[in-house]
Amino acid sequence: MSIEAIRYRPGLLELLDQRRLPAEEHWVGITDVHHAASAITDMVVRGAPAIAITAGYGMALAVRRGRVDRRQAQELLLAARPTAVNLRWILERLDQVPDARVEPEAIRLHREDLDTNRRIGMTGARVLPPGGVLTICNTGALATGGWGTALGVVRSLVCAGNAVHVWACETRPYLQGARLTAWECQREGIPCTLIADSMAGALMAEGRINSVVVGADRVAANGDAANKIGTYTLAVLAKHHGVPFYVAFPRSTLDLRCPNGQHIPIEERSPDELTTLRGVRIAPEGIHVWNPAFDVTPADLITGWITEDGLWTPETR
Amino acid sequence: MSIEAIRYRPGLLELLDQRRLPAEEHWVGITDVHHAASAITDMVVRGAPAIAITAGYGMALAVRRGRVDRRQAQELLLAARPTAVNLRWILERLDQVPDARVEPEAIRLHREDLDTNRRIGMTGARVLPPGGVLTICNTGALATGGWGTALGVVRSLVCAGNAVHVWACETRPYLQGARLTAWECQREGIPCTLIADSMAGALMAEGRINSVVVGADRVAANGDAANKIGTYTLAVLAKHHGVPFYVAFPRSTLDLRCPNGQHIPIEERSPDELTTLRGVRIAPEGIHVWNPAFDVTPADLITGWITEDGLWTPETR
Repeated sequence: MSIEAIRYRPGLLELLDQRRLPAEEHWVGITDVHHAASAITDMVVRGAPAIAITAGYGMALAVRRGRVDRRQAQELLLAARPTAVNLRWILERLDQVPDARVEPEAIRLHREDLDTNRRIGMTGARVLPPGGVLTICNTGALATGGWGTALGVVRSLVCAGNAVHVWACETRPYLQGARLTAWECQREGIPCTLIADSMAGALMAEGRINSVVVGADRVAANGDAANKIGTYTLAVLAKHHGVPFYVAFPRSTLDLRCPNGQHIPIEERSPDELTTLRGVRIAPEGIHVWNPAFDVTPADLITGWITEDGLWTPETR
Repeated sequence: MSIEAIRYRPGLLELLDQRRLPAEEHWVGITDVHHAASAITDMVVRGAPAIAITAGYGMALAVRRGRVDRRQAQELLLAARPTAVNLRWILERLDQVPDARVEPEAIRLHREDLDTNRRIGMTGARVLPPGGVLTICNTGALATGGWGTALGVVRSLVCAGNAVHVWACETRPYLQGARLTAWECQREGIPCTLIADSMAGALMAEGRINSVVVGADRVAANGDAANKIGTYTLAVLAKHHGVPFYVAFPRSTLDLRCPNGQHIPIEERSPDELTTLRGVRIAPEGIHVWNPAFDVTPADLITGWITEDGLWTPETR
């Protein structure tokens, strides 16, 4: 089994506080939907599938307590973070069941996600070459119900006996690569080297990268993919160096109502994420900052879309 | 006048400690060559021209004290940082004068650098379009004898009345962009927005960048340029988006003995620069790190080479 970051027992959701990793493994107990929503906004939990699972449990807590009506709870959770579409998808799934079924369905969807990830991994292991794999952000067990999407593909490659070396972009400003991907790889003995995001070009120029694999927060009908800021830069670099560039995601990340990437809302986060680090000021007070959390990689830079049902192809191809 | 970061009076070199900016303006007093060399290695001072000026004063201190022989002092300073060629250039210049002339010559070369930078600025202001200018690291007054190379071009554009907006890459791992460029721009009222290095692609895709201008630590005879890690990534992005990419440097940065970028030694620095930030751990203990301080941008990605004598053209063109 891979690392677990979301636990639920009736009435109590527990989240491994991802803001404190790798320094400490601290669990946050959550018993109401407001707290579930703020845990998503404040990034106690992050990663599109993990956010969705948390939102599912948030709905379960809301129904269980009965004090918040379901419509309100839904709106609260939907507003927690705007870019990942999985959150909306899970709330729509839960909308179809009566109150008494919300909690068991949330639990079932959590388990389903783990299974989905293993199947994403199998698809990916068929197409990705072994060798140096570059990735960004954290798309592993911590970002999902377990196993992972892009990092799940790496896990599956390793499980199938391939020699793989993960090159983890530290992923500024929130350092999910340095804090979470490096930690996951280290814990599971997957060979991993940490780099600053800006080193990706030099690394590819040296011929050390055989593929890039990233996750997605939303994939539009034409194949454009929103993912962690910096993903688009990696895609341009991959094209320049002739390195295949894959996106790995569950089908719940597909937003077929969204024709292309221009329609994906991009969350802008606080300047503080760039100007301070754990309370230490690293840029002058008052400096203007641009801090989008995601960018959009156009379909024409993407070699393949890896899902639990095999390789997906945009309708426009 | 622009900001001053290196002061000398006979027997005493004073450096503005760039490791402590922007939090505090602390000056370090230096009276011997060993301390001058360690200030370069430890990045109290950084930036190819500023390193050279500091090394020049280091030689002046060595000669003044008389306890260290000139050959030893030279070797000590040459080993302080390997990539910037200006350091070797200034030591070769000083090698040609007798003991009594070393100190006045070091002072003269410091003044000459300021004049050189203003001329680089004038060359750049003729070719750079106004509008959004993307840059990396710090190439301003702090990196030189004053004014700056790439950021000096921005200063000259502003002085000539052009509307310019600087987009400063924070420049991981050492954050010269966030700490130094943002600070310089803010102090002089140059409009500036700070971004994470990984945002450069998304920013260009939005059409907000009209040019990229960077400094250099060494330029080979064929035009390949070594500069701060991440520069090559910006050059690939600029090419993909049709944005002109300029390198600005004094002719002392040219290494005509070096045929191409493959012959430029690239300094690798401590993993700690990526795994900790001001003593705070941001990646798991023991994780493997790749931390080259520079990368090489091949000549074919460079639109123009801006020097104090106008645009330079590689011999191979």
